Amino acid sequence: MHYPNGRKNNHTYKTLSIANRAQGFSNRGMTLEEDINAANTYYRDMDKAVIHKKPTPIQVVNVHYPKRSAAVITEGYFKQPSTTDYNGIYRGRHIDFEAKETKNKTRFPLANIHEHQIRHMKSIAKQGAVCFLIIRFSAYEETYYMPAEVLFRYWDAQFNGGKKSIRYETIVKEGYLVPFHYQARVNYLAVIDKLYF
Amino acid sequence: MHYPNGRKNNHTYKTLSIANRAQGFSNRGMTLEEDINAANTYYRDMDKAVIHKKPTPIQVVNVHYPKRSAAVITEGYFKQPSTTDYNGIYRGRHIDFEAKETKNKTRFPLANIHEHQIRHMKSIAKQGAVCFLIIRFSAYEETYYMPAEVLFRYWDAQFNGGKKSIRYETIVKEGYLVPFHYQARVNYLAVIDKLYF
Repeated sequence: MHYPNGRKNNHTYKTLSIANRAQGFSNRGMTLEEDINAANTYYRDMDKAVIHKKPTPIQVVNVHYPKRSAAVITEGYFKQPSTTDYNGIYRGRHIDFEAKETKNKTRFPLANIHEHQIRHMKSIAKQGAVCFLIIRFSAYEETYYMPAEVLFRYWDAQFNGGKKSIRYETIVKEGYLVPFHYQARVNYLAVIDKLYF
Repeated sequence: MHYPNGRKNNHTYKTLSIANRAQGFSNRGMTLEEDINAANTYYRDMDKAVIHKKPTPIQVVNVHYPKRSAAVITEGYFKQPSTTDYNGIYRGRHIDFEAKETKNKTRFPLANIHEHQIRHMKSIAKQGAVCFLIIRFSAYEETYYMPAEVLFRYWDAQFNGGKKSIRYETIVKEGYLVPFHYQARVNYLAVIDKLYF
């Protein structure tokens, strides 16, 4: 398994996990989205990177305009996002990623990703973006950075007799464990630093 | 005035305008947003760039879940966007911009831009983004590309005794006329090509 600073997975994870608990920094109960939002806020506050979660696309059907107060949407529907959820800029590079959490202990089902998101990721990868998938195995409290090219390989394989999911061991081996950071709780820029700079 | 291919403004504009009308390509009646969306779709279809409009942020307060049909948002409110409306990637560069249309014939009022958008633009410019403002003077059917640094100068000046708006002549002089293109109706990548590549 690849770990940005060369340490072994199990060791690192246990160390972090014990440290977190000892200091009361446990991630338990925080969703992956909350952790990434916290990381992004920290990155922005530190002038390190500017990365935002895109708003959920909503189709607004009816709006009511009461006198002397804000417009109220009275009928709207959630739309399927046509891109990934997060993008922005870090050290001049365009950053673009999707984040998924699974309770599955043995594999990451590819059905978690939509085909149009893969299409989007392939397009931006071609333009030179730093593109990846963040996968959290909540059962292990482990979060992995998977480069888009690895994802594409497994995604495409499923249509050629391959599996509809990626095994946990494969993700450990081909992905990068995202280190925990007190403020940037899912410190994915540390992985990008190792891979790109 | 700066025009990417070195031609003079009036001449260029008249040429385009006459050509457009003659060929029935007039932009009349299309909003700036529609034109930019058309350009972005064209750029994506041609594999030229991947640039999207971000969804409007909406605060969802109440959702109704009817049996056997999609969730309906029954109470929601429009939120102030904390970033610019458009971003993406072109030839490896992070692209980020805001677009504004004005009916004003003599000046662009700075009140069209929010302070948090300027803050966002300053942060991403520091990270190395290609950052700009697209301004359309609908009375003249003219659309300008204004580099973020020019915008920052006038924005900051208003708090030091400067004007609360930018004169049309200044935009013509310090901005770049965005050429019309049959499919990419606001062909702003042509300006970026001249400025960055």
